[in-house]
Amino acid sequence: MSNKLLECVPNFSEGRNKEVIERIVDPFRKTEGVKLLDYSADKDHNRLVVTVIGDPEGLKKSVLEAMAVAVKEIDMNNHKGEHPRMGAVDVVPFIPVRNVTMEEAVELAKEVARQAAEKFNLPVYLYEDAATSPDRQNLASIRKGQFEGFKEKIKKPEWKPDFGPAEVHPTAGVTAVGARMPLVAFNVNLGTDNIEIADAIARKVRYIGGGLRYCKAIGVDLKERGIVQISMNMTNYTKTSLYQAYELIKVEARRYGVNVVGSELIGILPAQALIDVAVYYLGVENFSEEQILENRLLWG
Amino acid sequence: MSNKLLECVPNFSEGRNKEVIERIVDPFRKTEGVKLLDYSADKDHNRLVVTVIGDPEGLKKSVLEAMAVAVKEIDMNNHKGEHPRMGAVDVVPFIPVRNVTMEEAVELAKEVARQAAEKFNLPVYLYEDAATSPDRQNLASIRKGQFEGFKEKIKKPEWKPDFGPAEVHPTAGVTAVGARMPLVAFNVNLGTDNIEIADAIARKVRYIGGGLRYCKAIGVDLKERGIVQISMNMTNYTKTSLYQAYELIKVEARRYGVNVVGSELIGILPAQALIDVAVYYLGVENFSEEQILENRLLWG
Repeated sequence: MSNKLLECVPNFSEGRNKEVIERIVDPFRKTEGVKLLDYSADKDHNRLVVTVIGDPEGLKKSVLEAMAVAVKEIDMNNHKGEHPRMGAVDVVPFIPVRNVTMEEAVELAKEVARQAAEKFNLPVYLYEDAATSPDRQNLASIRKGQFEGFKEKIKKPEWKPDFGPAEVHPTAGVTAVGARMPLVAFNVNLGTDNIEIADAIARKVRYIGGGLRYCKAIGVDLKERGIVQISMNMTNYTKTSLYQAYELIKVEARRYGVNVVGSELIGILPAQALIDVAVYYLGVENFSEEQILENRLLWG
Repeated sequence: MSNKLLECVPNFSEGRNKEVIERIVDPFRKTEGVKLLDYSADKDHNRLVVTVIGDPEGLKKSVLEAMAVAVKEIDMNNHKGEHPRMGAVDVVPFIPVRNVTMEEAVELAKEVARQAAEKFNLPVYLYEDAATSPDRQNLASIRKGQFEGFKEKIKKPEWKPDFGPAEVHPTAGVTAVGARMPLVAFNVNLGTDNIEIADAIARKVRYIGGGLRYCKAIGVDLKERGIVQISMNMTNYTKTSLYQAYELIKVEARRYGVNVVGSELIGILPAQALIDVAVYYLGVENFSEEQILENRLLWG
């Protein structure tokens, strides 16, 4: 592997047909400079989420090959699933991991978007840090209307694709390609079953409510456990740390006489997101990431 | 690299002659299956500390080659330095890192000790987890008397070497080879210049004083900063966590109305030692080390 490393988490609209799923995943197994970390297909969502890591060249090559399979094999006219979706290749985010700036990740996203549009005659939108206008930063805004609604939406001047034709691909729909920071899914549990308290705390902690800059949060009812949860996406752990969200939730919970009873970390995250937490709570002075054995092994 | 991984931190009694230092370090650069992480030579200590990681075969080969250079080039009769020492190759600890049990680390230590004794006609003691009796566990007990004192000490039946002749090597002295858990050097600073308080807290926190099982601690005067410190060696962070030592120091400091004002982590440590801390303070439920990106890259 080169010393430039990104993560890519492409989402495909196929969660049921194992043969197709394996053929989509195959390029990530076979391409040099790329390592397949995880893939999971969900039948209810009818969606495949792949996590790969690699250098820019290897990722570009393998992502385009996987996209070719998905565009050929998936017919969105027959697609049903619980998760919102707009295309056979629904979304392709590139995430800087090591020795890669956000600018370089954006360049890679644009190059993949351009080639995909050309090769597959596919309308492609750039989103998040790769977005060409503020109203295209948010993936949910782009995807609104989903595959079925895009036949009309794509005709509007403000929704002209960044690459490819201003016409939905007849079977593969449209695709979003973007660049973003690593996302850490962090949920904090409260010792109450009152969802209003979780909602109120979520509103105070998240960015749009005046809270932390890189924190999205909603209240969630964990009915089986009889408790509620603040479910968060930490969208840039290098700037908004996990301990900040955790401590602010404790501060808000005090208003209601409610305790924080635990937390969850979902999926894969960089060690540094937790090392920052440890360094804060232990008050460690002058700590360097080069002191971490695994960093020496990987990048030393 | 194979999937069995150990760290080795051999200490050699040469901290001044650059040419000899480089020749000792060379096998760790050139041997397959081994990665040189760090080496530092200290002139005052007149000592070279090498940190390497690798599979059992690569480590065995490279360590024996480095020992051959040190035995040939270092004459302990001319050695002066502030650090206690008993041989040209003073001490060789093997530390399990990944997919290696302590039993396997002990086997590797014994094999290296046996071959070194045979190849170099060198008396070798096994220490820590490789020790053949409880009074040989502690390196300081073995090393007591140092090179100069060993001519007499080695004649005592209780100090017969585990391998090699019961006679000091005329120029290379004696060597200790052992196996131990990774050691984390963790220091906690107090908001006072009273060394008696640091000493008293150290005594309460450390194992021999009735404190934590895998914690060695002493009080240290940081004269330049006008504060004192509890300087600790955490000898098994998988069993005694850093947060336990930190919180117990805070508990003791309360007696004296003194605050903990910071801490330091010295040298290289495994990410898991800090991840355990973060998981504790955030109250994370069901966390798995497979969720760490770097672990997926290294061992996934």
